[in-house]
Parts: sequence; structure tokens; C-alpha cells
Amino acid sequence: MFNLTTIVGFVAAFCTTISFVPQALQTIKTKNTKGISLLMYSLFTFGTLLWLLFGVMLANYPMIIANGITNVLAIIILVYKIKYK
Amino acid sequence: MFNLTTIVGFVAAFCTTISFVPQALQTIKTKNTKGISLLMYSLFTFGTLLWLLFGVMLANYPMIIANGITNVLAIIILVYKIKYK
Repeated sequence: MFNLTTIVGFVAAFCTTISFVPQALQTIKTKNTKGISLLMYSLFTFGTLLWLLFGVMLANYPMIIANGITNVLAIIILVYKIKYK
Repeated sequence: MFNLTTIVGFVAAFCTTISFVPQALQTIKTKNTKGISLLMYSLFTFGTLLWLLFGVMLANYPMIIANGITNVLAIIILVYKIKYK
């Protein structure tokens, strides 16, 4: 399982997920979603859900972990965007 | 090639890439990178490069297309961030 390809995938997953978390937590904390486009963020959230599904279909763990975390955070932000417009 | 899994992957690639493009083009057009953290954006850009490499290693076209486009835009924004701080 831990061949070079899988390692590259896990490092990729780590980098993009970690880079998304601070901004997501900041948005969740402040509830300030003014800079976010509802249409574009809906598309992004739906996209991460499909990447997660794609990862599950391929049994690709880096994709499942990265998109699982990102999707949960994106859904919370999207709910805030709709709730506190 | 065009089975259900590949279709899910291409729709996922379309959604996350399209949702990233307007914000990226806006940043490139205005050269305003004040809201961007250099550390987090460097990590994101490196991450998309690794996802691209991971996609190439797996010969996974949705991953290659999505991360290829996102990585090029992210590199341009990162150069602007460093140039116009």
C-alpha cells in the first residue's frame, strides 16, 4: 500500500487540506461569509463531495481523506453563508 | 474509459476547477493578493502540483486536468503575491 504513488497522494492530501483549514476555521469562527460567492461555493462544495465519491469508487485513501475533511468544512461554511447572508 | 467512475471524476473536476477560476482571474486581474497568506498559498500550490503528479502516476485524467489548470492559476497568483506584496 505504501508505495511512492500513495506517498505522493498522501503528501498532496496533507498540503491542500492543511492550506484550506485555517481559512475555513476563520470563516466558521467569524461567521463572515461576505467574500464568498454562493454560486461558486455551492459548486465547490458539490465538487468536493463528488471527489470524495470518486475516491471511494477508486478506493483511493488520499482522495477520501482530503475530500472528506474539505467537504465537511465546506458544508459548514455553505450553511453559514445561507444562514448569515 | 467512460464508465460511471470516470464520469463522476470529470464532473468533480469540472465543479472544483470552475469554482476556482473566477476568484483566480479576479486576483490575476486586480493583482490584489492582500487576503492571501503566502505560507498557506505556497502549501496549496505545492499540493496541487503533487495532486497533478499523483494523477499522472495513476493515469487518472480527471485529476490531471483539474489539477493541471488549478496549478497553473495558483502559480500565477503565487508569483503575484511575491511580486506585489
